[in-house]
Amino acid sequence: MKHTISVLVRNSPGVLAKISGLFSRRGYNIESLAVGPTEVEGVSRMTIILEGNEQVLEQIKKQLNKLIDTIKVVDLDTNNSVSREMALIKVGVASTQQRSEVIQIVDVFRAKILDITDQVVTVEITGRHEKVDAMIELLSSFGIKEVARTGNVALSRGGKVVSLPKLAKQ
Amino acid sequence: MKHTISVLVRNSPGVLAKISGLFSRRGYNIESLAVGPTEVEGVSRMTIILEGNEQVLEQIKKQLNKLIDTIKVVDLDTNNSVSREMALIKVGVASTQQRSEVIQIVDVFRAKILDITDQVVTVEITGRHEKVDAMIELLSSFGIKEVARTGNVALSRGGKVVSLPKLAKQ
Repeated sequence: MKHTISVLVRNSPGVLAKISGLFSRRGYNIESLAVGPTEVEGVSRMTIILEGNEQVLEQIKKQLNKLIDTIKVVDLDTNNSVSREMALIKVGVASTQQRSEVIQIVDVFRAKILDITDQVVTVEITGRHEKVDAMIELLSSFGIKEVARTGNVALSRGGKVVSLPKLAKQ
Repeated sequence: MKHTISVLVRNSPGVLAKISGLFSRRGYNIESLAVGPTEVEGVSRMTIILEGNEQVLEQIKKQLNKLIDTIKVVDLDTNNSVSREMALIKVGVASTQQRSEVIQIVDVFRAKILDITDQVVTVEITGRHEKVDAMIELLSSFGIKEVARTGNVALSRGGKVVSLPKLAKQ
């Protein structure tokens, strides 16, 4: 079963190494990891998607909570959270005809064109993981040159907030 | 100076731990890191944004190239690449008036509304780092509840492709 874990961490040097080390030492398989700043300075949010049963999940949450830089670990309910990914896709186009076809697909998926030449079209798409997969699949008939995906980020639905406890000044 | 490094790696367990360990051991400061699958199975692309002079950059590229899982390291020219970030932002709205104002801002930034209740609006925005910063800044007057950012991903402009060497079957 797939789980989405949102971890708030103090943005100290080496925190990413510690957390990714924790996963690799134990052989846990991360499907994706995205890390970025939050609304609070000095605090980063990592969104980790992983495959595993309830027992593995509990273990991971325990291990994450033990790390000194961890502020909060939240297991986001997949059915009650918004989860989105972004991908940049560079597609080769051999003719004007092919380029029109790619532009049509971009419209259907409500994606955006970031760069266009007579040989390639670079597209930005956001959506659920499956939607991004579907678009890449569809574009692959034209020849995909490059893909860069961000991995999922997620927030709980509605007003529920993963609040930050007051940070002790260090 | 800011640099964008795109690293293609074999998706082996522990590769993220190795790369993030390399940065933290040497005290290099990563501004953001995004990792996701590519068009080739078993290969992931990491986009790393970091601050440093040319000498630091050369050192990092050398170190990354030494890792066994590294397939290719590319230093993307900021002026000749498309670089985008996605953020999910949950904003508190205290009144219908405030909600309308948030919806207007979303329109101006060409962002999307993912979830809406009588208390919060959850927004998806994509764009350059600075654009995402600007939107968060603007929305902060309403009260930001939560932010999840992906970190930048980037591809070179035009037809130039960071091609994958043929992978030896392992």
